[in-house]
Amino acid sequence: MNVDPDYSATYITLETESGACGYGLVFTIGRGNDLCCRAVEAMADRVLGYDFAKIQSDILGFYRHLQADSQLRWLGPEKGLMHMAAGGIMNAAWDLWARLERKPLWRLLSDMPPEQFIACVDFRYLEDVMCRSEALALVQANEATKTERIDTLKNEGYPAYTTSAGWLGYNDEKIESLVREAVDQGFRHVKLKIGQSLDDDLRRVGLVRKCVGDDVKIMVDANQIWEVDEAVEWVNSLAEMRPWFIEEPTSPDDILGHRAIKSRVAPVLVATGEQCHNRVMFKQFIAHDAIDIVQIDSCRLASVNEILAVLLMAAKYKKPGCPHAGGVGLCEMVQHLSMVDYVRISADMTDRVIEFVDHLHEHFEDPCQIKNGAYVTPSQPGYSTKMLSKSIDHFAFPEGREWVLRSA
Amino acid sequence: MNVDPDYSATYITLETESGACGYGLVFTIGRGNDLCCRAVEAMADRVLGYDFAKIQSDILGFYRHLQADSQLRWLGPEKGLMHMAAGGIMNAAWDLWARLERKPLWRLLSDMPPEQFIACVDFRYLEDVMCRSEALALVQANEATKTERIDTLKNEGYPAYTTSAGWLGYNDEKIESLVREAVDQGFRHVKLKIGQSLDDDLRRVGLVRKCVGDDVKIMVDANQIWEVDEAVEWVNSLAEMRPWFIEEPTSPDDILGHRAIKSRVAPVLVATGEQCHNRVMFKQFIAHDAIDIVQIDSCRLASVNEILAVLLMAAKYKKPGCPHAGGVGLCEMVQHLSMVDYVRISADMTDRVIEFVDHLHEHFEDPCQIKNGAYVTPSQPGYSTKMLSKSIDHFAFPEGREWVLRSA
Repeated sequence: MNVDPDYSATYITLETESGACGYGLVFTIGRGNDLCCRAVEAMADRVLGYDFAKIQSDILGFYRHLQADSQLRWLGPEKGLMHMAAGGIMNAAWDLWARLERKPLWRLLSDMPPEQFIACVDFRYLEDVMCRSEALALVQANEATKTERIDTLKNEGYPAYTTSAGWLGYNDEKIESLVREAVDQGFRHVKLKIGQSLDDDLRRVGLVRKCVGDDVKIMVDANQIWEVDEAVEWVNSLAEMRPWFIEEPTSPDDILGHRAIKSRVAPVLVATGEQCHNRVMFKQFIAHDAIDIVQIDSCRLASVNEILAVLLMAAKYKKPGCPHAGGVGLCEMVQHLSMVDYVRISADMTDRVIEFVDHLHEHFEDPCQIKNGAYVTPSQPGYSTKMLSKSIDHFAFPEGREWVLRSA
Repeated sequence: MNVDPDYSATYITLETESGACGYGLVFTIGRGNDLCCRAVEAMADRVLGYDFAKIQSDILGFYRHLQADSQLRWLGPEKGLMHMAAGGIMNAAWDLWARLERKPLWRLLSDMPPEQFIACVDFRYLEDVMCRSEALALVQANEATKTERIDTLKNEGYPAYTTSAGWLGYNDEKIESLVREAVDQGFRHVKLKIGQSLDDDLRRVGLVRKCVGDDVKIMVDANQIWEVDEAVEWVNSLAEMRPWFIEEPTSPDDILGHRAIKSRVAPVLVATGEQCHNRVMFKQFIAHDAIDIVQIDSCRLASVNEILAVLLMAAKYKKPGCPHAGGVGLCEMVQHLSMVDYVRISADMTDRVIEFVDHLHEHFEDPCQIKNGAYVTPSQPGYSTKMLSKSIDHFAFPEGREWVLRSA
């Protein structure tokens, strides 16, 4: 589906009167990034002049204020470009708050009293599945053992998996060498893109299974290529190679299609979420048992306020979360989210693993770090979203040197 | 939800080398209309230079080409602003084709051979519920009696209902007089906005029921205001006044929430669709019996190619379609869609009725006409989307006289 991505980002800076800054971004894949910038600008009058102390005392109030422009809401509602733009602004607000508290975001969220934590969450349209009081009880039940988990994270990090080995364009030799390299680096999961040719997929997945043996999990990703029945047949053809999950077998909007696929490809699990557009969709995927693995994306949902709601529902229904990452800054951001999930929501790392792609981290001031196949806990203040000024100077569109040179 | 709409539209003109023009629009409610214009412009390089003869021979190919920009697709996919922008361009393409054939759009679609008609439809991600051959059989089965239905439409038009009487801001006297006026004009359905105060709703709906007696259907519209359980309680409180359907009880994304509401408010029916973002969502609402009434919108879906798929699924599952209209140009457009549904898809007008709001028709070259509570069949070539040049001159943003005067 994503045949020619040109990794891009809408980059947002929020600045207070006293000069403190927070940084947010929306990952895009090229054309359309300018539209995303314009969408952020269209929301500016809801942001400029808003009292930051009010954001700190009631960040959900700011989130609602941002989304309450009914004229802009018409263009969603709560989905696609407009929702992503609102999420980018909220990412910057969360980054700013964490910087002012001198904590990495996952610690800011981990250290709050349970009531304050739950007060950040958007439960609108979710009450038939999870209400605020139930969520609070869930978080309170984890409170006594919270510090143990913080220590575990500091010592061991959070498990990662790699997609770097399995892109469709790679030949067999390249896949084999990249997979061996990944396993040597400590990764216990590898993911392959599939769906162009069944014969190729049988050969490639077979090759990887032979290469990694039985202890490493193999995931396969179809990027929405199939109809429902087609997905079932294709995945069942690969069953012998024991893939752990099939990711995005069909349209990201097809909750009941995913449920049908899930029931017909078991024991292969079904994963989706990278393009699941809001918490109401996730509610249905999760509570109606349409998927096994919940793949939140840090830039498609409207930031932490909405993502926490999804993680809480996933915990209630015992669905492991394996965030989507890669792109620009997604790895930097989702590590915070999985860590706070472990500390105070699911309190579990079983079958949970964060995607990792070794790409474009060099543009960030506090890039994510991988050690022994695991994300190292971030220690710098903020949401790890701040880009290096030299990268911005070089790549900003259209005035950056890179673009000037290309158009010359 | 839509507290301060400022009715607007993105207006698109497609022109061939020989100077023939087609007109498309996307209805918006104010701010954000400029973003929609930018989104249309972002797709322009897929339109400029495309051979119109190719559109005539394979309009689905053009539709797919327009949506196949994978970088822009990331901002949806197939939802919200980007999808509406693509739909606006397709509306113009359909209008252009119908103008060149010198037929109103509903006749262009009614007169095609069944194979050509079905070749226009986007079945992607729908095949588990309806495939092309099944749809073709459905249309072929209606072929023998098609001309009778065309004659019926010409003689009687297509039934309309009015929302003009029931806006939230109106006092009881105004509602009563508007409802009486509507019934005198031949309308057999009236709709009221509800959801702000249960006491007010009980009084207002009661007043209208008393005023219209038992022969006129009353519909109520909550504009997404409720959680699932709240919707059930509120609607059941109104049961005594026998509303025909409750429209948009909760989030337009909540398929399974609507299904729960439907099972718990019967015999009151459940309607939604005005903000249902694509055919995959409608597939689930329809095939999983989550709603009773299918309310397509001519500007939220990606034009005729996608809407026909929804109408075909609705016919298969015997769900009446009652299109959303009002706004800018929606009445002008949906009349064509309901008429082609009657001629060759559902072949039925039972419990089907098109929304009508008597507002802004004066800006169109071929405005819809209502006679005896029914839409009169359009007879001018095209999709009735062309606006008067004096309206465009006056209201175009920001250069139109109206805007210049306001900013002076």
